[in-house]
Formats: sequence, structure tokens, C-alpha cells
Amino acid sequence: MNIGRLSIIGVGLIGGSLARALRRAGAVSHITGVGRGRENLERALDLGVVDAWTQDIAEGVKDADMVLIAVPMGMYDQVFKAMADSLGAGTIVTDAGSTKQHAIDVANRAMKNRENFVPAHPIAGTEQSGVEASFVELYDGRTCILTPLKSTNPAALSIVEGMWQIAGSRVVQMDAATHDDLLAGVSHLPHVAAFALVNAVHRQKAGGYDPFEFAAGGFRDFTRIASSSPYMWRDIAICNREPLLRKIVALQEELEILRLSLEKQDGDKLLDEFEAAKQARDAWLARQGGGA
Amino acid sequence: MNIGRLSIIGVGLIGGSLARALRRAGAVSHITGVGRGRENLERALDLGVVDAWTQDIAEGVKDADMVLIAVPMGMYDQVFKAMADSLGAGTIVTDAGSTKQHAIDVANRAMKNRENFVPAHPIAGTEQSGVEASFVELYDGRTCILTPLKSTNPAALSIVEGMWQIAGSRVVQMDAATHDDLLAGVSHLPHVAAFALVNAVHRQKAGGYDPFEFAAGGFRDFTRIASSSPYMWRDIAICNREPLLRKIVALQEELEILRLSLEKQDGDKLLDEFEAAKQARDAWLARQGGGA
Repeated sequence: MNIGRLSIIGVGLIGGSLARALRRAGAVSHITGVGRGRENLERALDLGVVDAWTQDIAEGVKDADMVLIAVPMGMYDQVFKAMADSLGAGTIVTDAGSTKQHAIDVANRAMKNRENFVPAHPIAGTEQSGVEASFVELYDGRTCILTPLKSTNPAALSIVEGMWQIAGSRVVQMDAATHDDLLAGVSHLPHVAAFALVNAVHRQKAGGYDPFEFAAGGFRDFTRIASSSPYMWRDIAICNREPLLRKIVALQEELEILRLSLEKQDGDKLLDEFEAAKQARDAWLARQGGGA
Repeated sequence: MNIGRLSIIGVGLIGGSLARALRRAGAVSHITGVGRGRENLERALDLGVVDAWTQDIAEGVKDADMVLIAVPMGMYDQVFKAMADSLGAGTIVTDAGSTKQHAIDVANRAMKNRENFVPAHPIAGTEQSGVEASFVELYDGRTCILTPLKSTNPAALSIVEGMWQIAGSRVVQMDAATHDDLLAGVSHLPHVAAFALVNAVHRQKAGGYDPFEFAAGGFRDFTRIASSSPYMWRDIAICNREPLLRKIVALQEELEILRLSLEKQDGDKLLDEFEAAKQARDAWLARQGGGA
């Protein structure tokens, strides 16, 4: 399989790593990088990640066989509008965003040939960003979720599926609502919880001490994701509002179960809850064959 | 300074590492290991961590100049009772437990010479346990908090302070209530939150999928402490009930702020909250001179 001419809007960790993986497989003939940051685009060219670049979205997608949107969720509206009139009738558009119903809504509003849009979410990433951080193995063994509609062009779907498989990923298809619910739980909620926890601890100074001064390694690990981009996570939260609201309520309910058990000094109930959590996590790790 | 004859009740990661650090400094003349597990005690002898061992607590503390209690909080009552009648009039007793008011309460109930008890909490540890996991550098550069009472014997306090300094730690003194409040925030609350989060996600199956299957590295890091010992954390939670209840409420309040902001689609408020958390965490890391 060869993708032909690929345009990547947003040549960062996600877009850059896909470019590298497709090149590794010889599965792409030409890559155009599209973005705002001139320095990053020049670096992408120097690194051989792209063959050409432009800061003009309409120009960048003009002759593309495939367009990958790899920008933050908050920029989807702007990007889809900017490219709408320049897409060819057969150009496949896909994305790599964290919330899928929102991507579909934006595409439906902006695109003439909306059946050519294949919503995708590669579950991979690091805390780094920019093309410098991209690497060829990012998607090896990872899961990429596709959330096609009934109206999605089957040929386009098949090509996008093949593209992510060539990049090293296992591809899973599900509906957008299921995706958004799953990711609200395993990704968006932990970020919200980490931000909330850091604020809760930070705002309760004890006896004039900075609480963080007495934090150990567990706290550092647990709060790492609270150092993520506030802008990116605001956008994801807003774009996945309903499912995330449900997950926040679920966490609040679990916390209330623990709070009430502790208030009643019900050690057995606390132990049951802590054990259920440990068993669920350890069983998951065992299935993964991974470490702690 | 030389501690003289040291008895360590509970020769695991915490007790074993202190033994190693004191030996490194030549600051102890004889170490008796006291515990329940015969195999672990024999291993401690083989490793040179202790000079002798016994499973009998009363026997183990008989001729000690210093006794270190390094057992889980849930065993304090039993251990303090078992040694009470065998302690010499001048034997110093200290501990390494995570909640200090509870330790003081137990010592006050059990000990005749309660002024010889110096409550301590070295903030160090790994997820490993047992004497095999102990190592000489565990306390290097770490903080050890002492929470003496006004009635605490100043000479005993000074010797315990010196012992932890020799082991490599920075020693800070504060009252037990402040300690318990600080640690409820930076240690006990994160554990409760991690257990709650894992349960919240696990119990909400989405579309027949196991949510964990779609978790990435962030979730693994964030939930690592949910694989901690449920028994140990039940005991810590119960022993530090009041401060921990306050911290759980604080977290619930922060979550409610975020939930309401999201419900109202108030992106500015969400951004403010996320940024406050990121700034607080990043500033702490910068003060530590550490990485992510």
C-alpha cells in the first residue's frame, strides 16, 4: 500500500512520528508539512520528516491524497474551515484527536465530501511536543481507534486502517460515543483528577509549611500529568464535556464511598474498596505482561 | 555518636535500610532484629544487616539502648504492649510510622517512661518490602520529621535526631497535628484518590470494552500507588482519620469546581484551575531542581 501524497497539518510529535513510520515502510511518496511555526517546519524538512512545507493550509492540502489533522482539539474548527474549499473530491481526511464526536461534528459542518473523513485516535504520546520529539517507533504495538460513521466511505476507511497498521498499530473500530466514554475514563478523568489534587493539596497550607516539601516519589508520579498543557486539556475537556462530566461524578461517588467508610471507621469497607482497586489494576498489568 | 545496642522491630525496607546506614557510619555497636518472619530474619543476619535476631519482642528489646519500631501502623498496639515491661528505664524508643498522633497515643497508653518515646517519620520508601529491598542510601538527602511532645526527654530527642542525620537525612521538627495534616495531603490523599479513580474507571464498562485496555502511560503512572498494600493503607487511613477526612473533602470541593465549570462550559475558569495546578507543581519541581 502507498498513501501517495500526504499532507500533515501539525507536524509535531504525533504527525511527525506517523511521517517517520510511513517512510520507514516506504508507504508514502510525498509529505507536505503544514503548520504555524516556521522554525518547526524548517526543522521537519532538515530532519527529512517532510519533503516540503507551507504555512498556508489551503495551499498545503491542494494536491493531497490524504490529509492528517494533528493539531490540538481547540483548533479543529479553524483548520477544517481553512482547508474545506481546497480538498479534492477524493481526498481522504483523517485526524488524531482525543475526542471523536467533536471531530465528527466539525467535519460535518465544514466538509463538502464528509464521507471522506475517517475519525481516528492513535493512543500514543509522550509529554514532549514538536517535530524534534517525534520518533519512528511511537506507534509500534499501540492501539489506534477508528470511529467511522455508517456513511463513511469504505475505501477511505480501509486505507486509513492500513496506514495505521503500517505505522505499527493495532487498529480497533468502535462508535464515537463509546470511544469518547472510554477515553473520558482512562485519560481525561485522570488529568482532571490530577489538576484537582494538586490544587487541593497546594491550597491547604499546613502550619506555614509548603506541603509539597514533604512529598515523596509517589506524589511526583501521581501528579506528573498535572504538568500537562492547561490549554490542550481545557479544549479536550470542553470537547468531551458530557462523557467527562459523567466520569467526574463517578469519581466523586467513589470518593464519597471512601469518605463515608472512613468517617464511620469502617475498616472492612475501606479494605474491600482498596483491594478491589489493587486487584483491577494488577490484573490489567498482568494482562499487559508489564511491570508496575 | 554511637547508638550502642539497637533493636529494630520489623526488619524490612525501612528498618533494614536504617541499620545499613548506621553501620556505614560506624554509629552502632550491636543490632538485634525482631520480627515475625523467620526467613526474613535469617536473611537479615546473612546480609549482615543484624547481628542477632529473635521472634520474641520482649526478649528482643531487653538490653537495648534504642528501639526502632518499623512495623505497619496496624501493629502498633500489639508491639508497644509486648515490649512495655521489658524496656529499660533509659531505653529510647522511636518509630518510623506514617501517622504521628496515633503513634503518640499508643505509646502514652503502653509505655511507663513515655518521655523516652521520640515519634519520627522518615519520608522515604519504595514499593518494595522486606530486608532484601533495604539499601544503605535510602535516607540520603531525604527528610525525616520528628514530632516530640513538650514532655519528651531532650536527650532522647537529640540522640534520635543525630541518628537520622547520620543516616543521611535532613531532620525537621514539628507538632504531630501539623505532620498528620501535611502527610494526609501529600501522601494519604493521593493513595485514596488513586484507589477511587481505579474503581471509578473499572466499574464503568463502556460498550463491553475493558477501559484499561485503552489506557496509556499516563494512566499507568497515575495509578501506580493503587497497587500499594490495601492493608497498610487501610491502617494509615484509620489512624489518620480526621486530617484525611478534611483532605478528601478538599479534593471533592476542587472536583466540584471543575465539574461546575465544565457543566457551564466555562473554559476560562477551567483554564485558570488547570494553570494554577501546573504552576504549583512546576514551581515545586523547580525548587527541587528535579525533572518531570
